[in-house]
Amino acid sequence: MPILVVGSVAFDSIHTPHGSVDRCLGGAATHFSLAASFFTPVRVIGVVGEDYTAKEEAVFHARGINTRGIERVPGKCFHWTGEYRDSMSEAHTLQTDLNVFQSFQPKIPAEYRDSEFLFLANIDPALQQKVRTAMPGVKMVCGDTMNYWITGHRANLDTVLRGLDVLLINDGEARLLSGESNLLRSAERILPSGPKTVIVKHGEYGATAFFSPASFPGECRHRFFHAPALPLAEVVDPTGAGDSFAGGFLGYLASQPAVTPAAFRRAMFYGGVMGSFAVERFGTERMQSLTREEIDGRFATFRELSHLDFD
Amino acid sequence: MPILVVGSVAFDSIHTPHGSVDRCLGGAATHFSLAASFFTPVRVIGVVGEDYTAKEEAVFHARGINTRGIERVPGKCFHWTGEYRDSMSEAHTLQTDLNVFQSFQPKIPAEYRDSEFLFLANIDPALQQKVRTAMPGVKMVCGDTMNYWITGHRANLDTVLRGLDVLLINDGEARLLSGESNLLRSAERILPSGPKTVIVKHGEYGATAFFSPASFPGECRHRFFHAPALPLAEVVDPTGAGDSFAGGFLGYLASQPAVTPAAFRRAMFYGGVMGSFAVERFGTERMQSLTREEIDGRFATFRELSHLDFD
Repeated sequence: MPILVVGSVAFDSIHTPHGSVDRCLGGAATHFSLAASFFTPVRVIGVVGEDYTAKEEAVFHARGINTRGIERVPGKCFHWTGEYRDSMSEAHTLQTDLNVFQSFQPKIPAEYRDSEFLFLANIDPALQQKVRTAMPGVKMVCGDTMNYWITGHRANLDTVLRGLDVLLINDGEARLLSGESNLLRSAERILPSGPKTVIVKHGEYGATAFFSPASFPGECRHRFFHAPALPLAEVVDPTGAGDSFAGGFLGYLASQPAVTPAAFRRAMFYGGVMGSFAVERFGTERMQSLTREEIDGRFATFRELSHLDFD
Repeated sequence: MPILVVGSVAFDSIHTPHGSVDRCLGGAATHFSLAASFFTPVRVIGVVGEDYTAKEEAVFHARGINTRGIERVPGKCFHWTGEYRDSMSEAHTLQTDLNVFQSFQPKIPAEYRDSEFLFLANIDPALQQKVRTAMPGVKMVCGDTMNYWITGHRANLDTVLRGLDVLLINDGEARLLSGESNLLRSAERILPSGPKTVIVKHGEYGATAFFSPASFPGECRHRFFHAPALPLAEVVDPTGAGDSFAGGFLGYLASQPAVTPAAFRRAMFYGGVMGSFAVERFGTERMQSLTREEIDGRFATFRELSHLDFD
């Protein structure tokens, strides 16, 4: 079933110990939609400037992604410049040029209205809520956020949280949002504020889903689920790993006949799989060359590296 | 089959946000042997002073641990004073009184000579090597170490590494030992220096085993295995968690008919299980009240929180 994603389509300039790239295609909606496109149809809502050309558009179209909702306006695309140092686990923002993103007002094309899955990528919670409200019939809504919105736009973010099925955040964001350093208590504090399930991403240590009784009413007796990460000898560029995780996760779920606990677990593994591919190359490069066969091969590897029933 | 462990038997004074304890029974050999005793016979080599009384001895004997190798000498036991702050993930040493441990020279009782498994807890690598050399016939040797020995006693530590089947260290120690920040490259650099397998413990994120072709000659086609940790709402005292992991891991392996890849995987889970119990109370308290039934119940929980085949 189709997923609708709203978020940034951007250019990224990235410096890592492995090299640098200047103005490569990026943005949360881009990384999410490329990852999700391996599993299900994807529709994007975003805004771009005049520097977004047929070359960028072709990256989406090669993966069959519907870009009708990417609005073109005068000006330049959102441009993020960032750096990763030794540990590669934390991005240091050097410059943020919002450009056309500053006055972004999401508009939902009529042909997107029947989307059954919705991903609210990391943007102003007021805009996330606007899209959420305009799509009352969706089956499942997942959302992401970041420090900036948690500390400075809390009331709006709280409104978004109340409408989420799954909140996808990282360790630091979970701690900031909850005011708790212990991860389980963090999740236990966030769950009553709205999201039925909280997935906390631990970077190279995988991700943990924390369930509430509302996650799978009457169906799931488990409180949490841990998906591993693949030990990688070389992380070339972590940008977009979290959005690729989200894309693999929600893309797989949307491809399934029903959102069952077992499908949710497999979706967490596919999230890890897509995140692990994303970081192998700069920007969207790895997603552009990836095949479903490679994805399923790595899914098998994830199973083997975490399950007891192997010799 | 019996395990021989050499290491510290100590008193710990511990301050955490949950409270403080003064001079509770601790030490790596203590935590290891209590955890391992749930699976297999355990024999301890260590040294204690006159402040080690029948009360401490009873903790070992209640678990059937052979303490013939705990030498009693004039003076006081090793005494560690430490503190855990907000995150509970790092111990800050406030004071170390080596006391009788300063002149510790391990002596192996005759009745220990037929031990088939050996754990070299975190002590001076020169002493680890002395015990290793005195036990040439053991089936499997595991060892631990720490920053102090890695930076200051590297030549001796390198000798120990060459004789290890499994090195058990944490993330920070793996990075320090290898000079690599990437964990997989870290392990790939450590493996050729001696240990057939490296287990890196990630605290609240579980542990990963990195295998070499020598881990299970001709038997194992996997490069790594990840065991989860249990999300815990309250970590009362992390002291001894790593040694309890080691005790659960090696204790389980020693209880098995053969060290197969499948047994190794289950042993990693039992390591995580024992570590998760250890931190629930101060010092050795939780191990003293623990039952095998609780252990197997939590093993099932670990499986459910990480395996795909559950609804």
